[in-house]
Amino acid sequence: MAGRSTRNGAGKGTILVTGSGIDARRLEVLRARGYDIRQPPPLLTEEQLARELKDVVAYLHGGEERATRAALESAKSTLKVVAFLGVGYETFVDMAAADELKMVVTFTPGAARDSVATFTVAQIINANLQMFRLIGNRYPDWKSVQDLPYELSARNVGIVGMGVIGSRIAEMLRRAFDANVAYYSRTPKKRLERTLGMEFKALPDLAEWSDILVVMVPGNSTTSSMIDDEVLGGVRPGTILINTARPSVVDPEALYTSMETGRIRLAAFDGFYSKDSEAAAKLLEDFGSRMIVTGHVASHTLQGMGRMLDQAVMSIDNLLSGKPDPHTVSAAARIPRRPPSSRPPG
Amino acid sequence: MAGRSTRNGAGKGTILVTGSGIDARRLEVLRARGYDIRQPPPLLTEEQLARELKDVVAYLHGGEERATRAALESAKSTLKVVAFLGVGYETFVDMAAADELKMVVTFTPGAARDSVATFTVAQIINANLQMFRLIGNRYPDWKSVQDLPYELSARNVGIVGMGVIGSRIAEMLRRAFDANVAYYSRTPKKRLERTLGMEFKALPDLAEWSDILVVMVPGNSTTSSMIDDEVLGGVRPGTILINTARPSVVDPEALYTSMETGRIRLAAFDGFYSKDSEAAAKLLEDFGSRMIVTGHVASHTLQGMGRMLDQAVMSIDNLLSGKPDPHTVSAAARIPRRPPSSRPPG
Repeated sequence: MAGRSTRNGAGKGTILVTGSGIDARRLEVLRARGYDIRQPPPLLTEEQLARELKDVVAYLHGGEERATRAALESAKSTLKVVAFLGVGYETFVDMAAADELKMVVTFTPGAARDSVATFTVAQIINANLQMFRLIGNRYPDWKSVQDLPYELSARNVGIVGMGVIGSRIAEMLRRAFDANVAYYSRTPKKRLERTLGMEFKALPDLAEWSDILVVMVPGNSTTSSMIDDEVLGGVRPGTILINTARPSVVDPEALYTSMETGRIRLAAFDGFYSKDSEAAAKLLEDFGSRMIVTGHVASHTLQGMGRMLDQAVMSIDNLLSGKPDPHTVSAAARIPRRPPSSRPPG
Repeated sequence: MAGRSTRNGAGKGTILVTGSGIDARRLEVLRARGYDIRQPPPLLTEEQLARELKDVVAYLHGGEERATRAALESAKSTLKVVAFLGVGYETFVDMAAADELKMVVTFTPGAARDSVATFTVAQIINANLQMFRLIGNRYPDWKSVQDLPYELSARNVGIVGMGVIGSRIAEMLRRAFDANVAYYSRTPKKRLERTLGMEFKALPDLAEWSDILVVMVPGNSTTSSMIDDEVLGGVRPGTILINTARPSVVDPEALYTSMETGRIRLAAFDGFYSKDSEAAAKLLEDFGSRMIVTGHVASHTLQGMGRMLDQAVMSIDNLLSGKPDPHTVSAAARIPRRPPSSRPPG
């Protein structure tokens, strides 16, 4: 399947742009530099991606496809930059392959912070109130005291990951709703603890303490299945799990067990396990009515996408012009990686 | 249909308690005083209510029933206090009849403020993101830039009514989400304008300015159909309407017209028009997919209901003991009505 391609004449090479909701006007900078833009339909298979990548000099990754070793290798003689739209590049780009192939990977930290945090807070309230059961029930009948949800100010909300987005979620919950917030992070954030009035807790303690457990860490090999049997076995019955991080952060079998025992009452995911995951299919089949699943869209606002796109375009422009770029994340980067403390969720 | 009734022996009279989600333990104060409690199933018809009211000395109105003149008259020789659970008593209690019959009406201002405001903010975000279309769409396909929602910080939110709840909504929207907020109120609130950073606008100006129009005024004869053809004819195409006030505040025929023309894109209501309203039925039939309707449950949290119930119980206790009560709203009140500025939404 050949992608849509627009030619500007100068012929400096082709840039592949994947994903939907991409505002073409924000790519004009690159066209003006003399690059062609290729925009195929979304949800590319590995084979389709390999074909689309052929001869491209830069690849703006804005879709749900995996940039695998095989796909990247198909462009190894030309591809210089992989600009990932968002922060969770490790889930979507084979970083080892990119490093070996000397492709520079960039990301867009902070750009969709408010969008993702707002979406997450809405899902916290929705799950807490069981909003989706209330909708359409215009004249509700008898309700027992036991059915009444708790006010958010009477809830313990535990946040796993206190990076750019996690800290914004904490801020919203404290400033607007007066919820009790605690968090776990690789590195404690003393200043945030003081300004927002929240406590650091070790992960098992946080799990036990939380009425609502929110996961907001980058998806990578360190965080894969971070929310496992041990964590979910330690939550109190009736706990709500909100995962607006990558699905891989939560072990699907551990989640199944915790939903079976009732320790997890309701789970919200933005972005779900791969279509061929049996564990995921079983989750939906047996506990679908207790799962609120959206398709990795928390960052999808006009402003969030716009800022991400502008950052990615600038990174491509910088790196193709031989200039340094502040948002590189790969070993092949021309300037050093920023220290972990200023990086996104963690 | 006879209600459940519990007798404590002393026989000082019976108190009728209607509605669901009532924590019986919070009524113990009254039982301890020697009153019997009668708790019938909810959704009483006028006839059922008249029967249940017979011989009662106080009536805690926590349901969706209308305390009509006929119903109140059935208890005219005994009923001294009608304690309304919530703030919108004028919709549910025939105040003229209560005054004539020398029944004191009380309400519970502020008690469910946080619950209602939190619910409203969630519906603002849900409607803005079209959350209910995102749920269940695990692997979304191509999305155009035009489909992307705006970030809340890029939205104008106009609030009609700046009372206890309206001001809490404004506070949440400003402090947590940095939305642009303006408001209309009978009396401008200069201090709030300064502390929250928002502007007063005349109602037509507010309607024209708003991307999201939030209605939070008490339901009474003054506010009935306040949101009419003139207001809705002045909004820009694609405006979102959030009505967590009483449905009567929005004229259903004006809403129909505005949904037909596309001026109103989506409308959320908490509590809907009466079951036999033809205009309401037509709204649902033709625009149901663009309406998010819940059953007057925004205040229904354990803490919100608990505080309301405690206030109502205290009012009943005060007034039956011949003491003054700070929450009286009727002409028959033993202490003067509080000035409008300290009253709930308006």
